[in-house]
Amino acid sequence: MSRKKLNRGVAIVGAGMSKFGAFTGLSTRDLFVQAFQDMRASIDKGFDPNDIEALYIGNYSSDLFEGQGHTAPFMADWTGLAPRPATRIEDACASSGVALRQGIIAIASGLYDIVLVGGIEKMNDLPTSEVTDTLATASDILYEIPAGFTFPGFYAAMATAYMHKYGATPETFMKVGIKNHENGSLNEKAQFGATIRKVMDGKIAKAKTRGYPEPTWADEIEFLHDDRANPVIAWPMRLFDCSPISDGAAALLLVGEELATKFSDAPLYIIGSGQASDVALHDRKDMTALRAAQLAGKEAFEMAGVTPADIHVAEVHDCFTIAEVIATEDLGFFPQGEGYKAAEDGRTARLGERPINTSGGLKSKGHPVGASGAGQAVEIWKQLRGQAGERQLPGEPTLGLTHNVGGTGQTCVVHIYERR
Amino acid sequence: MSRKKLNRGVAIVGAGMSKFGAFTGLSTRDLFVQAFQDMRASIDKGFDPNDIEALYIGNYSSDLFEGQGHTAPFMADWTGLAPRPATRIEDACASSGVALRQGIIAIASGLYDIVLVGGIEKMNDLPTSEVTDTLATASDILYEIPAGFTFPGFYAAMATAYMHKYGATPETFMKVGIKNHENGSLNEKAQFGATIRKVMDGKIAKAKTRGYPEPTWADEIEFLHDDRANPVIAWPMRLFDCSPISDGAAALLLVGEELATKFSDAPLYIIGSGQASDVALHDRKDMTALRAAQLAGKEAFEMAGVTPADIHVAEVHDCFTIAEVIATEDLGFFPQGEGYKAAEDGRTARLGERPINTSGGLKSKGHPVGASGAGQAVEIWKQLRGQAGERQLPGEPTLGLTHNVGGTGQTCVVHIYERR
Repeated sequence: MSRKKLNRGVAIVGAGMSKFGAFTGLSTRDLFVQAFQDMRASIDKGFDPNDIEALYIGNYSSDLFEGQGHTAPFMADWTGLAPRPATRIEDACASSGVALRQGIIAIASGLYDIVLVGGIEKMNDLPTSEVTDTLATASDILYEIPAGFTFPGFYAAMATAYMHKYGATPETFMKVGIKNHENGSLNEKAQFGATIRKVMDGKIAKAKTRGYPEPTWADEIEFLHDDRANPVIAWPMRLFDCSPISDGAAALLLVGEELATKFSDAPLYIIGSGQASDVALHDRKDMTALRAAQLAGKEAFEMAGVTPADIHVAEVHDCFTIAEVIATEDLGFFPQGEGYKAAEDGRTARLGERPINTSGGLKSKGHPVGASGAGQAVEIWKQLRGQAGERQLPGEPTLGLTHNVGGTGQTCVVHIYERR
Repeated sequence: MSRKKLNRGVAIVGAGMSKFGAFTGLSTRDLFVQAFQDMRASIDKGFDPNDIEALYIGNYSSDLFEGQGHTAPFMADWTGLAPRPATRIEDACASSGVALRQGIIAIASGLYDIVLVGGIEKMNDLPTSEVTDTLATASDILYEIPAGFTFPGFYAAMATAYMHKYGATPETFMKVGIKNHENGSLNEKAQFGATIRKVMDGKIAKAKTRGYPEPTWADEIEFLHDDRANPVIAWPMRLFDCSPISDGAAALLLVGEELATKFSDAPLYIIGSGQASDVALHDRKDMTALRAAQLAGKEAFEMAGVTPADIHVAEVHDCFTIAEVIATEDLGFFPQGEGYKAAEDGRTARLGERPINTSGGLKSKGHPVGASGAGQAVEIWKQLRGQAGERQLPGEPTLGLTHNVGGTGQTCVVHIYERR
């Protein structure tokens, strides 16, 4: 493929999100309004919402989760933006990453100057078994579901294939989960942020009181084989390897590059975008890498003119811990088969050489599937602008990346962001 | 709103569809492959499918209809197009009209030269009551469904409001349905095409045998009050006022304008595109017009630089007969409150001054909801290229329009096509 180029540059001038979690009594509309208001507050120089010309809303399946289809116009209505064109984008858990791409494309087309990109999902209205069934519809209903698969099973299959080929162990994956929970404990918007932090603070306080050595995050590995606290979901994926069932929304305001400083003191310029598809998992020769992620990454890096080594911070799609390991290889951060060693060695920790999922990732921040991609961009927005609070990366990072996967990797979309 | 302009012109160089109907044992994948092959056969100078760079697939709710989410990558796979990026667009029954708009935008952005736009829906796997419930999710589940509404009820409410305000009668609407069935009887791809034609041919043959006067389509009005053949669904909408439950797919190949003649002897240039959203029906001041349609039409006409009077042929969204009447007013073909008179007077007939739905429209051609918008473009493709067979309009039409509505009008998208 030739190097792809957009007719016009695009920048993010506002980014916000609702809390991610389990919110009884709130609908996607309520959550999206929260995200919209949070986004609005992030625009340094303010703006008039009436200047928004179109909405692209990522949503996996409000149809099945809430019984509400045709979601995009409702988001326009509830943010006061009707009659602007409102389009829902669906690519399973990559829905709002792809919505972001459509927003970029729409501005590059010349049709719009200012576009609102959103992501929404409300999963907790259904019982867990129905959530699992709903998510399973993102796999192949003709060839995979009849074989008994649901998503933990798919990623367990990838994990066993990876372990077999490269030598990773369940301990490797557990370390990814612990790292993300540690990061998430510093994120006030994360589903498990405050809870996990409280637990850890309690342990430390108790140890102090009793004169024991203070526990560290690394000690959490003791739960690896604890079948009560950390039961097997689909071996080798245990509870602590799986992202939760989440409700949440995120919102991004995009403008033509030349307009960016009119709205923002520190806009993020989107310098790379890549998207690819793939056949369903059962039809692939190799289950230890996602071809769609490799291709989407390649397209984004080529468009941006940067290399994986240049990236300061990345949010990758850790729906399961194995997925993060594979992602770091697919994106070229580590050679194939070596991502797990990097994870084991702490190289992907927040203060490691290659920080991955400083937000806590889907594992700790939560995974309201249609909102996750836009939520990733919110973290990059914060990190590159020095607004990530306690989890802020040192060294003033200027280049960030997001990697958002749909299903078992039948969709992947990658974006690269620059603060100039 | 200022006059919208795209950074690059876009043309359609191929258009095709599956038959629309009820197809036991076929999935959306099968139907889309049929549409893809039909589209491929329509490309005058041939092409290599490998040159396709991306797919935009309109689909309302394969999630609920078939239990399959994440449909876009499957369409890429089954047409041999993985790993191209594949994105599903959802705006209820306007899904593939909006997918067409995204395809246009994507080419105008400079990112792609060649894009496949598809529309798919498979509705007949569910029992009728569940189809009705599934369609109802395109309305407002918080404020409308609890009031007992389903779609025939919504359009019945619009019809009664329209009758009250302007004086139309159930007979007006019946005439719209008869006109569309007459047109559809000349369309080999229409759901009711061959069936209705056979019935009418049989009536004529019988009359000849017996020496009676030959029946005409206008005589079908006798069924207006026939509660057995034409039962009330939601007064004043009877069975003959409602589009059917349909399975089907359509496919369009778009290219950058400057590439069009490389593929086609007679490409259609897309000179206008408009899209708008609206609040849900219960929240509108007026139920006799769709604001989203008026705005989408205005945007498309302004972009195209033509007026309603210039259009030679239009496919409008007649999910119910009342919707066609309102559409012809919203688009400016007739003044508000006069569309019904035009319908009564036969001015929208195939050989009338303003041909509407020469394909048979959703009423007769069928309404596989996510495929209907792309299917409308297929009819314009045929009419403007002189390939509409027995239903070909005289006078070599060169300007066509499509009007595709989602839900009760929370979405509308309009396109204008020119053969040069």
